[in-house]
Amino acid sequence: MISGKNLVAGKWLHSQDAKQFKTIDPILDKPLPYDFQEATSHQISAALEAASKSFELFAHTSFMQRAAFLECIQEELDVLQEDILTTYTTESALPEGRAKGEFQRTKDQIQRFIELLSEGSFATASIHTQGPDLRKALHPIGPVVVFGASNFPLAFSTVGGDTISAFAAGCPVVVKAHPYHAGTSEWVAQAIANAIEKSKLPLGIFSHLGGQSHEVGSQLVCHPLTKGVGFTGSFSGGKALYDLAQKREEPIPVFAEMGSINPIFVLEHKLQSDSGLAEALTQSVTLGTGQFCTNPGLIVACNPSGKIDLSSQIKKHLEGMQLPPMVHSNIEKQYNKQLSLLKLNDKLNSIHTSESCLAAVASVKAAQFLKDKSFSEEVFGPFTLVVDCKTVDEVFEVADSLAGQLTATILSETKDYETSKGLLIKLQSKAGRILFEGVPTGVAVTQSMHHGGPYPASTDSRFTSVGTDAIYRWLRPIAFQDCPNELLPDTLKNENPLGLQRNIDGKLTSAAL
Amino acid sequence: MISGKNLVAGKWLHSQDAKQFKTIDPILDKPLPYDFQEATSHQISAALEAASKSFELFAHTSFMQRAAFLECIQEELDVLQEDILTTYTTESALPEGRAKGEFQRTKDQIQRFIELLSEGSFATASIHTQGPDLRKALHPIGPVVVFGASNFPLAFSTVGGDTISAFAAGCPVVVKAHPYHAGTSEWVAQAIANAIEKSKLPLGIFSHLGGQSHEVGSQLVCHPLTKGVGFTGSFSGGKALYDLAQKREEPIPVFAEMGSINPIFVLEHKLQSDSGLAEALTQSVTLGTGQFCTNPGLIVACNPSGKIDLSSQIKKHLEGMQLPPMVHSNIEKQYNKQLSLLKLNDKLNSIHTSESCLAAVASVKAAQFLKDKSFSEEVFGPFTLVVDCKTVDEVFEVADSLAGQLTATILSETKDYETSKGLLIKLQSKAGRILFEGVPTGVAVTQSMHHGGPYPASTDSRFTSVGTDAIYRWLRPIAFQDCPNELLPDTLKNENPLGLQRNIDGKLTSAAL
Repeated sequence: MISGKNLVAGKWLHSQDAKQFKTIDPILDKPLPYDFQEATSHQISAALEAASKSFELFAHTSFMQRAAFLECIQEELDVLQEDILTTYTTESALPEGRAKGEFQRTKDQIQRFIELLSEGSFATASIHTQGPDLRKALHPIGPVVVFGASNFPLAFSTVGGDTISAFAAGCPVVVKAHPYHAGTSEWVAQAIANAIEKSKLPLGIFSHLGGQSHEVGSQLVCHPLTKGVGFTGSFSGGKALYDLAQKREEPIPVFAEMGSINPIFVLEHKLQSDSGLAEALTQSVTLGTGQFCTNPGLIVACNPSGKIDLSSQIKKHLEGMQLPPMVHSNIEKQYNKQLSLLKLNDKLNSIHTSESCLAAVASVKAAQFLKDKSFSEEVFGPFTLVVDCKTVDEVFEVADSLAGQLTATILSETKDYETSKGLLIKLQSKAGRILFEGVPTGVAVTQSMHHGGPYPASTDSRFTSVGTDAIYRWLRPIAFQDCPNELLPDTLKNENPLGLQRNIDGKLTSAAL
Repeated sequence: MISGKNLVAGKWLHSQDAKQFKTIDPILDKPLPYDFQEATSHQISAALEAASKSFELFAHTSFMQRAAFLECIQEELDVLQEDILTTYTTESALPEGRAKGEFQRTKDQIQRFIELLSEGSFATASIHTQGPDLRKALHPIGPVVVFGASNFPLAFSTVGGDTISAFAAGCPVVVKAHPYHAGTSEWVAQAIANAIEKSKLPLGIFSHLGGQSHEVGSQLVCHPLTKGVGFTGSFSGGKALYDLAQKREEPIPVFAEMGSINPIFVLEHKLQSDSGLAEALTQSVTLGTGQFCTNPGLIVACNPSGKIDLSSQIKKHLEGMQLPPMVHSNIEKQYNKQLSLLKLNDKLNSIHTSESCLAAVASVKAAQFLKDKSFSEEVFGPFTLVVDCKTVDEVFEVADSLAGQLTATILSETKDYETSKGLLIKLQSKAGRILFEGVPTGVAVTQSMHHGGPYPASTDSRFTSVGTDAIYRWLRPIAFQDCPNELLPDTLKNENPLGLQRNIDGKLTSAAL
C-alpha cells in the first residue's frame, strides 16, 4: 500500500501540518489518487540526526555485512516487484518493457557493488614500512543525501547507483524522492527498510523524504550533518544545490550529473558511406522519449560536398513514429516551449516536428551555430540539432566551442583517421566518455565506465555516477601512523584478513605482512 | 641575479606600471634591496593563455618525457643551490640546517614523482572487453594555479609538491610566488625555466608571477582558463580562494590545506608513566618556530588524579630556549596578538610566555574548553594549549567538539587500550592522519601519507597535498568506447607499451590484450 508518509529511520511518519502533493498519470494527464506528504523541517532534522548517530556503527560494519545487506535489498525488491512496476508505469508513462529492463538493471547494478564489496580492493590499502609505519585506506565520509532523478524512477533514484554506492561505502543515506514518481519511490523505500530490519542494521542508515517544493532539498543540503550529495537532473537544479552546498559553514561535495548535449561527430567518409546512419541516430534521439542523460542533442556532420542532408533523413525516420509522452507534463511543456523558441530563430536552416509524436529535428550551418550560444543549450527530450560543416576546420571550431559533455562520439571511416585524431585531442578536454561506434545512449555499469564530464556536464569531472567507481565519491583516505595492529581497520591489519591486494612499499601483493 | 621581474611562458617581463614590493630580513626586520614587481592583469592573462595553449601538447607527452623533465629540474636546482639557499635563509630567518634539509626534501619529493612516472600505474587503466569495449584512464585537467606557502619556501612553494604533482600529471602550472620569499622563489623559477628549455617542452607550461596584494591571486583563480588551484596556508586565505573559485561561471576545484591544531591526546597511563613526554611535546611545538601545518596546538591530557601538570612541565622545557624569529614580522605580530587576547581570557587556568623566545604554553580545564569555541582556534606559531580532563568522558567530549584536523595523535599505554579504541572511532571522522607514537610534525613523503583532512583542515578531504597520491588532484578519468587501438593513449593500448598493471575485466595484470 502507498501511504504517502515519510520514512525516518525505520518509522513511517504522518504530520498534520505537512503540505500535500500528488503524482500524475502522464498518459491521461490526470492526478493519481494518493496524497503524498512533504517532509517537515522536523522530519528532515530527525532523518539526518539518525543518520549521523548510526554512522560510526555503519562505517565499521565489515564489507561482507554490507554485501549481505545489498543482497537483502535485491530480495526485498523482488518481493515488491509487481507493486513497483505497476506504480512505475502508471507514474512515468514509460512502457512495461522499459520498466522491467530498468528493474533488472537496478538489481544488476546492486550486484556489481556486492561483487565490489566481496573483492574489497576499492579500499585502496597501502602500507609503508620504512620510516614510521604508515598505512592508508579509504573511509566513508558520513551521511549522504541522494536526490531521485525524474527520468530513471529506479536506476537513478531511491535504490539507484547513488544510494547503493553510498551504502557500499558505509555511508547512511537520506533520499529525497522525486515528486514525479513518489509512489514508485515509496515502494522501493519499503524494500530498503525491510532489508535493513532483516539485516539487523541500525535503522538510522536510511530515511526517505518526499516533497514537491525546493525547500525540502535545500534544507537537506544545508543541514550541518550532511556530508555529501548525489544528484542527477537538470543544470538549474544541480547548480542550485551545488551553490547551496558551497555557501554552508562547512562546504560539502555535491556530485551533480546535470546532463549535456552529447555531440556526435560524423566525419566526411562515414557520412557518405553509412546508409544506416540516420536510422541509428533517430533511434538514439528518440529512445525513452529522449529522456536519457546521454541523448545526442547535437549531430555535427562534416559535409564538404553539401550533398548529404542528414536532418531530412532523420525527419523521414520520424514520420509515423509513436512515442509515449514524457514522464511528466511539466517536462513536456518545457520541451515544447524550447522548441517554440527555436522555431522563432531565423538562423536555423530547417526545423521539423513530427506529426505523430513529440520528436523533432533541426539543422543549422556551422557558421550560424558558432555565432549563437543558445544553439548549444540542452533541449531535454527527443530532439536533435544537425550542424552542417563545410570543412574539417569548421568541425574543429564547433568542437572547441562546446562546453563540458558527458559523452562525445566520433563516427568515422579509416579514411577519416587524421580528422579523428585531431578531433580526439580536442574532445579529451571536453567529455567524460568518448565513443567511436554506436550511440551514447546506453551506459554500461562496469568499472571502466565513466559517467560524468567537465563542467557543466557534472560538478566534479573526477568522479562517475555510474559503475563501481561511483563509490569513490563517498570515501576519503585516512593514514594511520604507528598504529597497533589490533586497532587498525581490517583492510590494513598485518595478517590481511580480507585477502586484499595491497600496495606494500610500492609492490601490489595480497600477502600478509 | 634577482631581477624582480615576472616570468611569463619563458620571458622575464618588466612592466613600467607595476606595483613594487620588497622582501624583508626577519632577523634584522629590515627590507632587502630587491624590488619585486607585482604581476599585471595583462601578464596574468598572458600566463594562462600560454598555459592553455601548451596544454594539449603537454598532456600528450609520455610519462618518460615528464620524468626526464623532473630530473632536469633537480639538476637545475643543484646548479642554483647556493643562490637559492642564501636567499632562503636571508628571507625566512630559518637556519641553514633547515634550509639544506628542505632543499634535499624538495629534491626527494621530485624523485618520488619521477619514480611514479617511471612506474606509471597512477594512470589507473581499466579495460572492459565484454559488451562494448570500454577503456578508462586518467587524463590531466588543464592549467593549474599554485600558491607558494609562507612556511616552506621550497617544499610547499614554487617547486613544491603542488607544482611537481601537477607537472607529473601533465598540467601546465602558473605559480603565484609567496611575497615573503619572492627572491628564493625567483631563483627556483629560473631553475624550472632552464629545465623547460633544456627539455624542449613548450614554454607555456610554466609562469611565475609575484604580488603582495590579493588581486593577483584573485585574478589567477577567476581566470576562465584556470582549471584547478593548489594552496597551503591560512584558513582565511584558503577559504577566500575557495569561495572565489565556486562563484566562477565554471566552478573549479581548489585544494587548500588550511592548517589545524593537530590535537595530541595523552591517555591516563601514558601521562603517568612517560617521563620524556613533556620534552618531546615541547620539541614538536617549537620546531621551526612553530610554523608547521602539523604543529600540535592542543594537548588533551587525561588526568583523573589531577597530579600531573603537563603545562608546567612544558614551561620548564621552554626556559632558556632560543628560537629564530618567525618567517615574517606580520606573522609574528599576528601570533603575539592572538597570545595577548588569550591572556585576557580569564577561563584559562594558566598561560606562560617564555622570556627567552617566542614560545608559549597555556592550560585550561576541559569544562571551560568545551564552553568556548575560541580555545580551539589555531594560534599559528610555537604555542600549545593543554586541556586538562578529569575523565575519559571529558576526553571524548573534547574529541567530539573538534573541527576537522590534518592530524590527531593518541599517546597511550597498553592499559589505555579501551579508551584508545573508543577515541580512535571518533577521530576517524575528524582527522586525515592518526598517529599512535611520536609527534605530528614531520610528514613523510610516501604513497601511504595523507596530508589533508575534513574541513576546515582542507577544502577536499579526499585528496592529499603530500606524497605521490597528490597527483590525483590534477587528473580526471576519460572512458574510451570502441576506440581504434592506434588512437588510444599508451596507457590503454592492446599491447600495453608502458608495461602497466591494468585492471582487465576485473583482474589486475600487466599482460597485453
